[in-house]
Amino acid sequence: MAHPSDLLPLLHSQRSGFSLARPFYADASVHQADLETIWYRSWIFAASAAELPRAGSYVTLQLGRYPLVIVRGSDGAVRAFHNSCRHRGSRICSKPSGQAAKLVCPYHQWTYETDGRLLWARDMGPGFEPARHGLKPVACEIAAGMVFLCLAADPPDFSEVKVAADRYAAPHRLDELKVAHRSSILEKANWKLVMENNRECYHCAGSHPALCRTFNDDPDLVGSDDSLSSPAGAAHVARCEAAGLPSRYLIGGDEQWRLVRIPFVGEAVSYTMDGRAAAPRIPGLPFDNAGSLLFFHYPNTWNHFLSDHVLNFRILPVSPTETEVTTTWLVHRDAVEGRDYDLARLTEVWTATNDEDRRVVEENQIGVSSPAYEPGPYSVRQESGVIQFVDWYVRTMTAGLAGPSAMAAE
Amino acid sequence: MAHPSDLLPLLHSQRSGFSLARPFYADASVHQADLETIWYRSWIFAASAAELPRAGSYVTLQLGRYPLVIVRGSDGAVRAFHNSCRHRGSRICSKPSGQAAKLVCPYHQWTYETDGRLLWARDMGPGFEPARHGLKPVACEIAAGMVFLCLAADPPDFSEVKVAADRYAAPHRLDELKVAHRSSILEKANWKLVMENNRECYHCAGSHPALCRTFNDDPDLVGSDDSLSSPAGAAHVARCEAAGLPSRYLIGGDEQWRLVRIPFVGEAVSYTMDGRAAAPRIPGLPFDNAGSLLFFHYPNTWNHFLSDHVLNFRILPVSPTETEVTTTWLVHRDAVEGRDYDLARLTEVWTATNDEDRRVVEENQIGVSSPAYEPGPYSVRQESGVIQFVDWYVRTMTAGLAGPSAMAAE
Amino acid sequence: MAHPSDLLPLLHSQRSGFSLARPFYADASVHQADLETIWYRSWIFAASAAELPRAGSYVTLQLGRYPLVIVRGSDGAVRAFHNSCRHRGSRICSKPSGQAAKLVCPYHQWTYETDGRLLWARDMGPGFEPARHGLKPVACEIAAGMVFLCLAADPPDFSEVKVAADRYAAPHRLDELKVAHRSSILEKANWKLVMENNRECYHCAGSHPALCRTFNDDPDLVGSDDSLSSPAGAAHVARCEAAGLPSRYLIGGDEQWRLVRIPFVGEAVSYTMDGRAAAPRIPGLPFDNAGSLLFFHYPNTWNHFLSDHVLNFRILPVSPTETEVTTTWLVHRDAVEGRDYDLARLTEVWTATNDEDRRVVEENQIGVSSPAYEPGPYSVRQESGVIQFVDWYVRTMTAGLAGPSAMAAE
Ligand code: FES
Ligand code: FES
Ligand code: FES
Ligand SMILES: [Fe+3]
Ligand SMILES: [Fe+3]
Ligand SMILES: [Fe+3]
Repeated sequence: MAHPSDLLPLLHSQRSGFSLARPFYADASVHQADLETIWYRSWIFAASAAELPRAGSYVTLQLGRYPLVIVRGSDGAVRAFHNSCRHRGSRICSKPSGQAAKLVCPYHQWTYETDGRLLWARDMGPGFEPARHGLKPVACEIAAGMVFLCLAADPPDFSEVKVAADRYAAPHRLDELKVAHRSSILEKANWKLVMENNRECYHCAGSHPALCRTFNDDPDLVGSDDSLSSPAGAAHVARCEAAGLPSRYLIGGDEQWRLVRIPFVGEAVSYTMDGRAAAPRIPGLPFDNAGSLLFFHYPNTWNHFLSDHVLNFRILPVSPTETEVTTTWLVHRDAVEGRDYDLARLTEVWTATNDEDRRVVEENQIGVSSPAYEPGPYSVRQESGVIQFVDWYVRTMTAGLAGPSAMAAE
Repeated sequence: MAHPSDLLPLLHSQRSGFSLARPFYADASVHQADLETIWYRSWIFAASAAELPRAGSYVTLQLGRYPLVIVRGSDGAVRAFHNSCRHRGSRICSKPSGQAAKLVCPYHQWTYETDGRLLWARDMGPGFEPARHGLKPVACEIAAGMVFLCLAADPPDFSEVKVAADRYAAPHRLDELKVAHRSSILEKANWKLVMENNRECYHCAGSHPALCRTFNDDPDLVGSDDSLSSPAGAAHVARCEAAGLPSRYLIGGDEQWRLVRIPFVGEAVSYTMDGRAAAPRIPGLPFDNAGSLLFFHYPNTWNHFLSDHVLNFRILPVSPTETEVTTTWLVHRDAVEGRDYDLARLTEVWTATNDEDRRVVEENQIGVSSPAYEPGPYSVRQESGVIQFVDWYVRTMTAGLAGPSAMAAE
Repeated sequence: MAHPSDLLPLLHSQRSGFSLARPFYADASVHQADLETIWYRSWIFAASAAELPRAGSYVTLQLGRYPLVIVRGSDGAVRAFHNSCRHRGSRICSKPSGQAAKLVCPYHQWTYETDGRLLWARDMGPGFEPARHGLKPVACEIAAGMVFLCLAADPPDFSEVKVAADRYAAPHRLDELKVAHRSSILEKANWKLVMENNRECYHCAGSHPALCRTFNDDPDLVGSDDSLSSPAGAAHVARCEAAGLPSRYLIGGDEQWRLVRIPFVGEAVSYTMDGRAAAPRIPGLPFDNAGSLLFFHYPNTWNHFLSDHVLNFRILPVSPTETEVTTTWLVHRDAVEGRDYDLARLTEVWTATNDEDRRVVEENQIGVSSPAYEPGPYSVRQESGVIQFVDWYVRTMTAGLAGPSAMAAE
């Protein structure tokens, strides 16, 4: 059982190349430290920009203890706020998403502009200053068509990842896409087990029959390396770059994020059972077989940008042993469901894959919760991406716990 | 996160006229302090006396960690006991209410008289003293037809409220009423949010379409003031007092309870959709349009005494963020359901109102649980009753935490 | 609220002959101490050997925080392991029971022999030593056809109980029995309340109409005494011993276990509604009316060995106030369901009895959780077995908390 003060020694005793010690996966105190050190300070993927198509579109989410709302203003800008009324604190927007001319509190109808200003509050008397009772803002940026939030008062620089992700994703025309489908599932596992699962394909052959029809589990291609040691990977990057598609492996200075475009298996062009496209080609792409642009950003998102659709994955911690996994499928806005794409066919492979991953990470959680569990060795060949993630986690927690902590709105 | 020792500074830092700080609404440690300082020491409304019509009638309830039973003895007196057998501690009565000649433990059939004496215990041997193994009594009083309990070894004086409530409620003939209906709902909110919600009608127009047909949300009438600043209120009090109905605003020395009779909207005489009576007039009332006698007693009850029926409301804390709300509808015992009153019509307005209140307090709970929440200003005009309640709470907790603590049966 | 350091004084203040103080039944800290002092150090009944009929048969269980698996090897030996993969810790076997040639981890297919050796692990590189990554073993013994486990690194001696139980149970031919039925129910009560309930029949007359048709609730027969003070008990032992059936009361030096054969009521030979046999006589028994060989072993099992079937009962702690109770009905392997026995008839009495016990222990839990509960006197005549159990518990906890603690695999 780790107490906050025990966490630094525990981090220092962590051996690179080995899975984390039990408290990191199971303890409430480590989970609280994860929230305060990573989740409340880092840039967090919150929603696809396509979920906010018009002025007044909003989405809500719960990030740890914080209810949040993201809304597109009448000026077209996307802003984020603490979803708590400045009167007596009621949550203002309760639906997962919606459309609203103003943000009206359901309790006493205090009314806020979509830019957060308080417009109206009944009977508050002469001394009341509306200007001091606007919604509390949260830092908000868009990169690759994805809305990121940061709860920190002084957020880390986001420009490097924004420039890179926008450049790589530009051919996928993120501002012309629409949401075809969105699913959320709860996985009974610590968020780090969910992320570890995503960062390796050692488990793919045994778990993902549908995905493996099109997704290449060659560790040279999908590991932490640059994919160029795979002949197929090198050829794909060369062909795509020649056609103007940014594709070459690119990793952030702190290794928090990575971009790379990889090929599918054989002639496949999309994550479908037969490998054929699931939707019309997005206009910015030069050819169908552009493979998949992979983009992860720790702690909470991995993404696939294909020639016919885009997949955003978001994880949010619910408890030390529960994580919500949300998947959003985006297609071009001109594509008509039933005519240009079949929703079941579009979502089939990743709906199955998500459920398969849920099952293995839940078993992983049960096993690592045993006091008899001891960290085991990762396969250097097959799990380089997991080692890279775990090293990032240990490095980030160590720095965060040793350094100053400044959080917004506390 | 407040620890018990942090609570006094937190209470001292509370600013009158502003909602409470987050720990008061969300923390387990504050909730424990609420239980020990208020719920286990104050007089708590437990049941309507009409729920105990005959000798052997009993009702049970769970007050915090304490299972309790209230029973009418063969002498007609109502008594309360800890609902835990003196043998191995089993709960004795498990049903919400019932009828029993004796109280028999379900485990080994130790048998208690309805006055708590142990009558029979098999094979306990010669040294056993039945007289030392009676049920542990709990202080019990009846006021305005309502059974109040107090767990304290040395309960605070109840005579002032009893005398006043009995006098005001007497015309409603509490000993001639019967239970027409009883409902319990669970609201996922701290008990103080439930009580705050009750003490203002700032939210009524936006939340309670059915209630607002008959209930006047004029803050001069329903606020913390004496209702005489409302011309309608003053006229109503004058007319009722002239007819012998105690009606004038009366508040306890410590502001823990209040009595006042207020008028309905227009010609309405009851909480119905059309404002007409839902049941035959209770014989003690001189006319139908007697409005509603309001009676609250902190921490856990508010009540409406009408010319045709009586409404008792009871709240009980279940967890830091859960509260049980029980409503009892009483009508005269001579009224026959289906002939003299229609149950759906009698209960329609407050069943809807309770559910509407549940929704807003649950959103309130989610919002105040955010670390970004900060206490906001109450409207002096619209929320004077909330200010009065919160001030009482802060005062009571401060005194209780600073003073000696003596509890029964620990 | 007991803290671990408060537990010894609390144990010392426990008065023999009285039920335990509230924290022993309700507190998380005591429950943790129970796990560490008793459940993770004592021999625990895990499964009937008949549940593992063939090589590759396995059963799983969760003992506190430890997932475990028991498997019969190709050599016929039954072994137990921590059910956590040596790679990244995944639980290996997730089903309650099954059949497997090898134990294959569902995550990355590391493959273990049924004796625990790691046989295969893909791509682990040249430095990897499979011999150091076998499943972690758990001590495992079989007595009276029952598989017992012990998590301790240095398990207490099991030979005394094994020799005795094997001798008494031998006529019931445990290696020729098969599982006819198995049920698990969750009882919302501390494990000690469940065990106390089992150790007395003071409650039987009031709770168990079906059981009392055949089970004799005479305290001379079923108490902590040797049953010889009951004339029926003495005659039964004499008759059975004369026929070669070990029957005489035998208790372990530490009083952790006991064996004794007692008669049924009247002419009854089995736990059925009419007292007649439910299944064909087990070949080793000389006559039908052999009564029931009773065998308890603290903390978690009591058992009945009859002439026609055998009943194993296992309790496992789930939380401070939740216990899983599993019942296994065994009959001779030659008996054919539908022809030689009727499953509903075989299981009727104890299915009802378990549910009746569930109800009384759940009420017991609610009552002892009251701060007003105080330990009451056990009936010396009727509850000698409970006194014996509670004394064992206090003695074992006191010794365990005072002495050294050594646990396996931590
Ligand atoms: S809490 Fe939002 S208007 Fe009152
Ligand atoms: S616990 Fe009530 S009679 Fe035994
Ligand atoms: S966790 Fe078992 S094979 Fe990886
Ligand atoms: Fe996967
Ligand atoms: Fe309301
Ligand atoms: Fe029983």
